[in-house]
Amino acid sequence: MSSIGPEIERLIQLLAKLPGLGPRSARRAALALLKKREALLEPLASALGEAAAAIKTCAVCGNLDTASPCALCRDPRRDARLLCVVEDVADLWALERAAVFRGRYHVLGGALSALDGITPERLNVAALLARARDVDEVILAVNATVEGQTTAHYLMDALAACGVKVTRLAHGVPVGGELDYLDEGTLSAAFKARRAP
Amino acid sequence: MSSIGPEIERLIQLLAKLPGLGPRSARRAALALLKKREALLEPLASALGEAAAAIKTCAVCGNLDTASPCALCRDPRRDARLLCVVEDVADLWALERAAVFRGRYHVLGGALSALDGITPERLNVAALLARARDVDEVILAVNATVEGQTTAHYLMDALAACGVKVTRLAHGVPVGGELDYLDEGTLSAAFKARRAP
Repeated sequence: MSSIGPEIERLIQLLAKLPGLGPRSARRAALALLKKREALLEPLASALGEAAAAIKTCAVCGNLDTASPCALCRDPRRDARLLCVVEDVADLWALERAAVFRGRYHVLGGALSALDGITPERLNVAALLARARDVDEVILAVNATVEGQTTAHYLMDALAACGVKVTRLAHGVPVGGELDYLDEGTLSAAFKARRAP
Repeated sequence: MSSIGPEIERLIQLLAKLPGLGPRSARRAALALLKKREALLEPLASALGEAAAAIKTCAVCGNLDTASPCALCRDPRRDARLLCVVEDVADLWALERAAVFRGRYHVLGGALSALDGITPERLNVAALLARARDVDEVILAVNATVEGQTTAHYLMDALAACGVKVTRLAHGVPVGGELDYLDEGTLSAAFKARRAP
């Protein structure tokens, strides 16, 4: 569009590449940035610059941090004998928000997918098998999707050779969830895994 | 959260201030940026920096551009005798995408709102009244909201003294719109303004 200068056009195109923003919301975001220059545009530009310079991938677990090994891998209060395997850094953040786990993590960087050509060699699997030799328990916290479950089955086979205890997250009714809105697979899993209160 | 470093935390907080992004989608956006460093993070950082340095508000019409007066105000092919009044730069962009208008613009910077304390003095109204003396027609392309219509009525009164022709956008059925989904106000306006084909 001729009426928008190339600088604004480029900003909109880059913002539209962010997940959750389409062309329309990217325009709104660009406009909000240009209107709040001191409060938003300049701080965001410097925050992005700092992140680009400082953030690296942890060589041990695959987490994102300013240092490698990351703060989680260096923390002596975390149990190094427990290893939680996640697909993505976002899953690691979600578990940390739940504050349910005090061991170490291992980020796979995705899930196996024959369709997308994601083989075990393209994931962070070899390092996991090496780390698994020094731990008591590997918790497979992969997504409950077809790809996640395929990955879990593959890892269970591969980890069997290490002789390490392997566990998986429980399936069941989400806390706060209403039965009426749940799919049959979840209900069936919750029913089969029923427990005495 | 202790597991996310302050650099990433600050990036997420700033992204969450963009319209259309909440805390959850800001986390996803930050993660996408950190994963695609060369393709997304660094270009966006430099685009923001360039925009912060280059983009200014046009002193004539209130548009955003690298120069003041802006490209639209400088364009000799645009009819300087037609002035289209919009609330916001986003509205100017929308009209330019429709490529329906070849005159000049005037950005008010908002709409009158007694509740929010937006008085005519806080809008770009005085400059509009000055510019209106040199044009043949002022088109009030304000939003069809209560605030927009209040602003239009105020401007019609104020512009009456200039003796300039004042017009407003037509109300009616949006192109592609289904009658069943339209509100009564729109249907009533479209019915009253019906025309021979």
